[in-house]
Amino acid sequence: MREANEGADGAAPRVGMVGAGQLARMTQQAAISLGIELHVLAGAPDDSAARVTPHVSIGRPDSLDDLLAFAACCDAVTFDHELVDVAALRALAAAGHTVYPSADTVEVAQDKGRQRELFARLGLPVPPFVRVHAIDEVRAFGAAHGWPVVLKAERGGYDGRGVWLAQDAAGAGEVVDQAVRRGLSLLAEQFVPITRELAQLVARRPGGESVAYPLVETVQREGICHEVLAPAAIALERAEEARRLALAIAEAIGLVGIMAVELFETRDGVLINEIACRPHNSGHFSIEACATSQFENHLRAVLDWPLGSIALVAPAAAMVNLIGVPGMPRNPVANLPAALAVEGVRIHVYGKESRPGRKVGHVTALGERTADARDRAARAVALLEGSG
Amino acid sequence: MREANEGADGAAPRVGMVGAGQLARMTQQAAISLGIELHVLAGAPDDSAARVTPHVSIGRPDSLDDLLAFAACCDAVTFDHELVDVAALRALAAAGHTVYPSADTVEVAQDKGRQRELFARLGLPVPPFVRVHAIDEVRAFGAAHGWPVVLKAERGGYDGRGVWLAQDAAGAGEVVDQAVRRGLSLLAEQFVPITRELAQLVARRPGGESVAYPLVETVQREGICHEVLAPAAIALERAEEARRLALAIAEAIGLVGIMAVELFETRDGVLINEIACRPHNSGHFSIEACATSQFENHLRAVLDWPLGSIALVAPAAAMVNLIGVPGMPRNPVANLPAALAVEGVRIHVYGKESRPGRKVGHVTALGERTADARDRAARAVALLEGSG
Repeated sequence: MREANEGADGAAPRVGMVGAGQLARMTQQAAISLGIELHVLAGAPDDSAARVTPHVSIGRPDSLDDLLAFAACCDAVTFDHELVDVAALRALAAAGHTVYPSADTVEVAQDKGRQRELFARLGLPVPPFVRVHAIDEVRAFGAAHGWPVVLKAERGGYDGRGVWLAQDAAGAGEVVDQAVRRGLSLLAEQFVPITRELAQLVARRPGGESVAYPLVETVQREGICHEVLAPAAIALERAEEARRLALAIAEAIGLVGIMAVELFETRDGVLINEIACRPHNSGHFSIEACATSQFENHLRAVLDWPLGSIALVAPAAAMVNLIGVPGMPRNPVANLPAALAVEGVRIHVYGKESRPGRKVGHVTALGERTADARDRAARAVALLEGSG
Repeated sequence: MREANEGADGAAPRVGMVGAGQLARMTQQAAISLGIELHVLAGAPDDSAARVTPHVSIGRPDSLDDLLAFAACCDAVTFDHELVDVAALRALAAAGHTVYPSADTVEVAQDKGRQRELFARLGLPVPPFVRVHAIDEVRAFGAAHGWPVVLKAERGGYDGRGVWLAQDAAGAGEVVDQAVRRGLSLLAEQFVPITRELAQLVARRPGGESVAYPLVETVQREGICHEVLAPAAIALERAEEARRLALAIAEAIGLVGIMAVELFETRDGVLINEIACRPHNSGHFSIEACATSQFENHLRAVLDWPLGSIALVAPAAAMVNLIGVPGMPRNPVANLPAALAVEGVRIHVYGKESRPGRKVGHVTALGERTADARDRAARAVALLEGSG
């Protein structure tokens, strides 16, 4: 088998991405520039990324047979989501396939409990938390750390799903009952007064070479990222702390690829919320705003190629998500001409039908000042929604 | 049939590009962002762009049957080269298909004689020229305008092919004899002492809305573009003249899409050399250096969508072509890891096997100063060649 990092004369390196959503779709744009053949393992032929590459396999990310067949046509296998079976990844690696991030890394990334335990063990700042299995444990945690208490599913949550705010023991009881019925394990976490949410992206190669993107502020509503502002308007020492934490995590989990570390800023400093070891919504701004996008650096990392500069090409950038709202056209392209008339915005639509709450595109604007970039991007998004 | 510019609810606009070289390949990257389904009419399944889109038809650009079948699956048809049959384009339009640029525009663009006659008629500055069919006519032109004389095939030349420099009547005789034997019609043109070559890109919508990119300097060797420097270091009034000329040409030929106007700078001003009505090598810098790339504005124009800002995002940019040299690896990806280590360069490889003289990629660098950007891009190209 050809080594992924050899770039053997005459053949393009083939990277296989498990998952074919918008993250794989934008990875394809980066792959085209570098002459990388991107293969995707899609659930359906009309998945976002399956529409834009000729190399599509249909299969399940938790099926070892499907993964083995997919890996056979790739030099390296990576992911656009964490919903993969770790045992299958281990089997894939054992069969001689290059898999990045590794099964060990994915195992940590897909489990908030493991993450928290690891970070606490490393002495990294996390909110007070405990694993809970019964309402009594939540009640004891609330008594010790105060109410409300945040309850989180350890696995499988995203975009606000799998997170509940329990105001008191009665509210917690309902969540715990449901979780027990659905077989979910839960974390209880102190409700921390947050001044801002932040995200720190890091890319890391197998040998340890790493780059840390400019720290960004993420604006969330109901647990869904709506806006990203780059760089975060934050004291230099806090940005430096975020960078140090993210690089420490990358090292500790043996990261290969890109990782987003979601952080809470409190009055006293920053706390680690959770990590995602794949291209991440908080890094979409990097397509236009950085010398090398998160997608390109992810590909470079998994092929063990030198990582690219993460320098900002403009003083400020803002990314606003296009999220389905009631009454929006099924295809966001319908309102594209109106939105394109907004000066200097960079519009991305994902080839997905809009449904309320679904991320179907995003808009990035660069500028001298964050507020101006944010206004322009938000105006284009409103026009895409049909509400502008 | 759906109108291309409607963006009908639920369906992606489908643009068909005749030709599947690197220009179509880079157009696919722009199409992905805008949710446009790019179809290509390729000569072979491994053509540069056919490797990166699932929508590939195999056929000949001069076959009406192939064009009709291709157009049937597209809302608008456009081109990545001019080697199309104008009569077939007229038949395509007559059958109700949207074709941009139009057959009339393509007819001018693919014929240097017609271009020159049109520009002269419009009072735009061109070098003295005449159509020649026999050596006596070249001899008379040389006597009137001095030797050497430039001889050009009216049609089909590119990258230095189809252009000859005749030092005297004897040399001209050889070229004319060969041209007559091969059925080529020729232009004779005064050999103009050039201080620099320039290129002005313009995009224009059906209604007339136009944008003119920053004027660039193109560095040619043996008729092949090697480097592009943006913006051209030129007096403001000359840049303004180039812009005015290009917009006048766009208007005169009813351009829809992107056009490159190649210009000569002489001690006395600028002269028009020739035009290309498609994305052009002199515009590759715009992918990273401008708010909207030539590829995106071409797509917007043919769909009659608002054109995007052409503002530079950095003070200076340089693009250096990767052109096959003897001894270079067949696949330029082989040397990619070395080249990626050069700080802040943006590498594009086209998925083509390298052969001496063949364009197989390019590198763009942005910077505060042109010289620095050029040095970095050139260093990356040398490493890709294996000579760095």
